[in-house]
Amino acid sequence: MIILVDAMGGDNAPDAVIKGTVKAIKDIKAEVLLIGNEKIINSKVKEFYGKNNISELSDRIKIFNATQTIEMEDTPTVAIKQKKDSSMVVGFNLLKEKKGDVFISAGNSGALLTGATLLVGRIKGIDRPALAGILPAYKSRLLLIDAGSNTNCKPINLLQFAQMSTIYLKNTYGIEKPTIGLLNIGTEETKGNELTKESYKLLKEKSKELNINFIGNIEGRDAFSGKIDAVVTDGFTGNIFLKAVEGIGKLVKKSLSENLKRNILTTIASIPAIPAIKKFAKTMDYKEYGGALFLGVKRPVVKAHGSSDEKLFEFTIKQAEKFVENKAVDNMIEEFEKANNKNEKILDN
Amino acid sequence: MIILVDAMGGDNAPDAVIKGTVKAIKDIKAEVLLIGNEKIINSKVKEFYGKNNISELSDRIKIFNATQTIEMEDTPTVAIKQKKDSSMVVGFNLLKEKKGDVFISAGNSGALLTGATLLVGRIKGIDRPALAGILPAYKSRLLLIDAGSNTNCKPINLLQFAQMSTIYLKNTYGIEKPTIGLLNIGTEETKGNELTKESYKLLKEKSKELNINFIGNIEGRDAFSGKIDAVVTDGFTGNIFLKAVEGIGKLVKKSLSENLKRNILTTIASIPAIPAIKKFAKTMDYKEYGGALFLGVKRPVVKAHGSSDEKLFEFTIKQAEKFVENKAVDNMIEEFEKANNKNEKILDN
Repeated sequence: MIILVDAMGGDNAPDAVIKGTVKAIKDIKAEVLLIGNEKIINSKVKEFYGKNNISELSDRIKIFNATQTIEMEDTPTVAIKQKKDSSMVVGFNLLKEKKGDVFISAGNSGALLTGATLLVGRIKGIDRPALAGILPAYKSRLLLIDAGSNTNCKPINLLQFAQMSTIYLKNTYGIEKPTIGLLNIGTEETKGNELTKESYKLLKEKSKELNINFIGNIEGRDAFSGKIDAVVTDGFTGNIFLKAVEGIGKLVKKSLSENLKRNILTTIASIPAIPAIKKFAKTMDYKEYGGALFLGVKRPVVKAHGSSDEKLFEFTIKQAEKFVENKAVDNMIEEFEKANNKNEKILDN
Repeated sequence: MIILVDAMGGDNAPDAVIKGTVKAIKDIKAEVLLIGNEKIINSKVKEFYGKNNISELSDRIKIFNATQTIEMEDTPTVAIKQKKDSSMVVGFNLLKEKKGDVFISAGNSGALLTGATLLVGRIKGIDRPALAGILPAYKSRLLLIDAGSNTNCKPINLLQFAQMSTIYLKNTYGIEKPTIGLLNIGTEETKGNELTKESYKLLKEKSKELNINFIGNIEGRDAFSGKIDAVVTDGFTGNIFLKAVEGIGKLVKKSLSENLKRNILTTIASIPAIPAIKKFAKTMDYKEYGGALFLGVKRPVVKAHGSSDEKLFEFTIKQAEKFVENKAVDNMIEEFEKANNKNEKILDN
């Protein structure tokens, strides 16, 4: 397996990407191909290795030269079309040509999503690929789709998000009948805006036929109970939801550590409790849940958080290996093909 | 001052309402008028007092009989129009007739908002009154408006929410120039859906003239930094945001206490840290921030959380006293009147 990594993407690139790769390589079997400015990557690798007294680069870390970088300010479509030798476009092309099995980037989100759709291509039967984010939940996790790629959605998109979540959760976590909810502001079917009302109807109507275990409207207050495996929503609402969770996570971390540090006595006294608190903080840190998966394109694409640090890159690389091992994308292609053939047969008759 | 309380509204009514009132009365100067079924309230009061060996009811707690109750399942407009002797409608009428200074209810949210608008009336110059929720923020608080009353909004509504927040925060917290952000999925002005893009333009254009300290788009991840006093949004998005915070709050509470309880050694060892952790949990508990204020109607209306317990009722009653003392509603009426007169003058010329 080859994991393609955009070494130039994200706020902390290339340092955090390289350090994360070096850390991850010990725990994975795959090869990592760092894509970007060869000279810079080479010198950074040496600098980092020198400081850490690591004698030599693992033979499973390789570099692929790309002379351009897509910046955060670049207009997505323009950048993808014009920066043909950027680390991101090169990465997508390698992925398309099957010279790698998954592509990870923390770069310009818009460009990543545009590039994945334009260069790698959509799975037949999926109108809008979408970002699936993994959030903490009680003794479990919550898949949020769309976490931010499609600002405007139609009910059919949300139905397809539900199908993709079902396939992904089954393959990756072995959940036989993942519970899928529609993110809404009330549980009654008449609640919400036009999109949620129409989507509710469509999901209810189609769920049996498509093997979706649709459990109705879900409010955010109940979403983290561990009883819901995925919530589907449009990319605007999903992103609002995701960032509310992220904001509260930051507040939790800051408030908890300050409350414990407030005076030296409390600090000392709380030392025995620290493992428990640390474990708690870990549960709450959405970063522990890694990158978001871009579901609905023909090959695996992982969007790492823009502000990923080396720890998060390490985690995301490991997560990407699992993503490939579990063959969620291949299964998705297969299942949608089956559904398409069925539809075509129906149309033929 | 008279605080009108719907004794029959909410999941835990009337018990939690009565107990909360009894607890709050010691700390407030106002009189509380419990509205609802006199017999039930009377017997509950006696039962509760008997158990707690309290010799007599404070002479500042009074009961006002109302024979009907609006249920959670009732259709808001129908209930408000037909259940004329319900605790909620009676409460609104007393408020309108100035036989009380503020009305609190944990009952049917839709009915409460409909009743407030229909029976108490909108402030001239405000097209859509809106729920303002108070959330925790770093060493501060965050006002969220609209927290859930208007599913569909226009840019003019968001502009008025910004005006109302400014007046409210100035009066209640003494913040001279409250910072107001537009809740969005990115900070650039081109980000978001149609509503946020149009609202951004309108807020930017009008903020100087209307004395709004508009600081642009705000993402949820930065909303709790303590640097932002209020975020404005439509009621659908606001409610999604509010409930995400609520859901994470529940997860935090559950995970933290379980992590600490996991084994007896950790539990004992963590005892000295408990005050700090408790303080932290308190900071994170949105219930500590009380009810949501329904801004834009002519008299103060407070929507208590539907699942309010006695502690939360106690807090909400105290909060309501402050809400009246600070005269935020009177000032709102005055400022909007000024603005209206100015506009009329401009039209006259």
